[in-house]
Amino acid sequence: MLDAVVVGAGLSGLVAARRLRAAGQTVRVLEAADTAGGRMRRRRLDCGVTVDLGGQWGGDTHTRFEALVNALDLERFRSFYDGEGLFRWRGEARQARLGADFDDTLLFFEPGDLPLSAGERAEARAVEQRFRQLVEQVDPDEPWRSPDAVALDTITASAWLQGLGASAAAQLPLQWLGRVGGSGGFELHQVSMLHLAWTQAVAPQREAPEGWLLRGGAGQVAERLAADLGPDLHTGCPVVAIAQDDGGAEVTTDDGHRHRCRSVVVAMPPNQRQRLRFDPPLPPDQIALHQRWPMGAMVKVLAVYERAFWRDDGGNGLTLGERAWLELTADSSPPEAEPGVLAGFIAADRALAFGTMNPAEQRACLLAELESLWGPRAGRPIELIWHDWGSEPWTGGAFTAFPLPGTWTTLGDAWRRPHGRVVWAGTEVARRWPGYFEGAIRAGEAAAEAVLVRQGRSMRR
Amino acid sequence: MLDAVVVGAGLSGLVAARRLRAAGQTVRVLEAADTAGGRMRRRRLDCGVTVDLGGQWGGDTHTRFEALVNALDLERFRSFYDGEGLFRWRGEARQARLGADFDDTLLFFEPGDLPLSAGERAEARAVEQRFRQLVEQVDPDEPWRSPDAVALDTITASAWLQGLGASAAAQLPLQWLGRVGGSGGFELHQVSMLHLAWTQAVAPQREAPEGWLLRGGAGQVAERLAADLGPDLHTGCPVVAIAQDDGGAEVTTDDGHRHRCRSVVVAMPPNQRQRLRFDPPLPPDQIALHQRWPMGAMVKVLAVYERAFWRDDGGNGLTLGERAWLELTADSSPPEAEPGVLAGFIAADRALAFGTMNPAEQRACLLAELESLWGPRAGRPIELIWHDWGSEPWTGGAFTAFPLPGTWTTLGDAWRRPHGRVVWAGTEVARRWPGYFEGAIRAGEAAAEAVLVRQGRSMRR
Repeated sequence: MLDAVVVGAGLSGLVAARRLRAAGQTVRVLEAADTAGGRMRRRRLDCGVTVDLGGQWGGDTHTRFEALVNALDLERFRSFYDGEGLFRWRGEARQARLGADFDDTLLFFEPGDLPLSAGERAEARAVEQRFRQLVEQVDPDEPWRSPDAVALDTITASAWLQGLGASAAAQLPLQWLGRVGGSGGFELHQVSMLHLAWTQAVAPQREAPEGWLLRGGAGQVAERLAADLGPDLHTGCPVVAIAQDDGGAEVTTDDGHRHRCRSVVVAMPPNQRQRLRFDPPLPPDQIALHQRWPMGAMVKVLAVYERAFWRDDGGNGLTLGERAWLELTADSSPPEAEPGVLAGFIAADRALAFGTMNPAEQRACLLAELESLWGPRAGRPIELIWHDWGSEPWTGGAFTAFPLPGTWTTLGDAWRRPHGRVVWAGTEVARRWPGYFEGAIRAGEAAAEAVLVRQGRSMRR
Repeated sequence: MLDAVVVGAGLSGLVAARRLRAAGQTVRVLEAADTAGGRMRRRRLDCGVTVDLGGQWGGDTHTRFEALVNALDLERFRSFYDGEGLFRWRGEARQARLGADFDDTLLFFEPGDLPLSAGERAEARAVEQRFRQLVEQVDPDEPWRSPDAVALDTITASAWLQGLGASAAAQLPLQWLGRVGGSGGFELHQVSMLHLAWTQAVAPQREAPEGWLLRGGAGQVAERLAADLGPDLHTGCPVVAIAQDDGGAEVTTDDGHRHRCRSVVVAMPPNQRQRLRFDPPLPPDQIALHQRWPMGAMVKVLAVYERAFWRDDGGNGLTLGERAWLELTADSSPPEAEPGVLAGFIAADRALAFGTMNPAEQRACLLAELESLWGPRAGRPIELIWHDWGSEPWTGGAFTAFPLPGTWTTLGDAWRRPHGRVVWAGTEVARRWPGYFEGAIRAGEAAAEAVLVRQGRSMRR
């Protein structure tokens, strides 16, 4: 009998397995997809450049991710933000400097550089101030115990903004956090104000979570962790059932194989847990929670150029504001600026709409938008690819899952509660940095600790 | 090779199979649970009385359900509504007459009988009038094409009511439709106004959908249909994968058995479809839709007495209004009033909270509430049972599924679209009476027709 089976070989499951093995446990990792990594995956393009199809950044306070990268002897470098970015508003793309102090900026920019009137800027800052007050009041560990939790959980973030009479300019920063903030992939009418405030309480944009990149791509982290597991990692191996009793647990894969173990770490996105047949069944609150916690929608775009030509003109590749498709572009080139890589993100409702077009239409939309942002050269990349995470059956979307309005205050207690020998991992159960690599690592480590504590207890008996 | 495999032996799947067999097709029905019926299930209690754990009623315009009941030679009788019901408001339970004309009532009652001021009644009627105007404007077949569809789909029903400044009394009828209307099981902050209006456009409460009952229980319908299938129905047989190519489809069950066929009818609630591995995979819009379409929450309560004693005092067993748990009670006794059966419903958030209590607490809550409504005799039933549909892993809730705000207008096109050889059934894809038995039958018949048309086309080639 194994000490533990880990279901899911994304970053969180891989870290849980690594931690358990380090503690001397026998572990098997079962992954449904043909490769490990989940939302941490790189691809070598036809032109020879390697890019991350999923997450790519680490942040200044991502201490566990930094430690892991160092342990794996991978090279980090600062993400490039020098120079001016582009802010599009009312059909106009304006070059603007980034603010030095996050608290003094509007969507990272010097407010005075944006095509907004002084009145608009003041109103946007006032709305942001109200939002920050809520963020400070949220209980990060148990958001359902925050002041006014029920009221804040039964009003959508969009209705909250409308209640303030917020202008379009004042709404944009919060819309941006929902759509393409690292805990996002949703529109503000899909979540409660409590949830939006919680995401910034536990994964604050002001801590610069897009601070650094990995030479060769973040996907290497998952590749190395997977390689370390050797034959203990089984890919192409979907789990269909988890049964448990006093004697142990039995994890059944869709080829009928049964894996006996003492503990199970389920390191899948919440929507994927619905594939599993539990015996004894999950309690009603977890059955309900898994249905009310869908993944966000996200398409990642990568455009490769000979060099990061926008830097030559003092640009930094960063784009925000109004646009047809791309919620954000960011310079993701290596430090030497050759090749030039722009990463772009199509988020939430736009990602769903984008997913219904055919590839030729999708390509035409992206080239036109890149050109409108960074000029004719941007419309002629060496290579242009995009990856719709909503097309991945074993993931179901990106960056992370969001709860329906009312879910935190009715089902919060089910969020992290183990089911007997089953403990939950995956970035969605992290208390800090959910939706990020950092959250995946912390959740994986916490799950491993819970398994060890559980087994320590049963050994002492 | 079979002509068709039907996945799911709830009413919709059973009807689809029956229709296909009647057309001369070879059909196999695969059901995950140990018994057929889905949300149409009766149970013989210890005291010998048979009750429906799930749906029980047919309605006055449920023509397909009526035809099926007649074909099976089952006996219908009118649900008992004579006499006065109870309306609880501000801590007071007031006996009140039911209105003769639905359009002239407030939650079925004569408005003048309710403990509301004339001003409150007028305001509640005005709000209801605004709601009816929306209902009339909704496109029942394609709600995303209704006037103002995006605006109505991105505001929750609760925010819409707050925008009108609706009083608690004026909010109650719409809250009731959401929680315990036949397309419900949700709170108004969980759905868009477009969705709430759509439910009443396609499944109108004014057509009296709780009109008649079946002697011996509605569950008999599913039992008879299942029995007719004989060995073509496989229970305890969860499907894990559906693959298809030009030659046909292959449906794999969790014992590794592969069922070859020309067409597949997936007759499962939307959340359950997430268990299936499709090859080729579903498109992104259907992957997203299935995540954004959870089941409502519902606990059905059944209290059995020697006789329907409330009728002796001119009561009809109907309760609505404010209460701790039971959203609705209704007389579900046979015509001779012996035994007396009260059916009760705990809906939406209250159902989730109820599901976290232990059985002794649950029983105490129910007995206290029954007694507070219908007197001391109501607190001493011969037998009291309750069934939490949220505890059923193969269903996930009741009565039916509801879409997140914004889902109709972004993913509506994915709602009923077949995936190659796979067509969808289940009451959730009905164009008329979704959430009801009638919708399940119509969706099952429509799926069978789609299979026949598809196969007719391929034969002519």
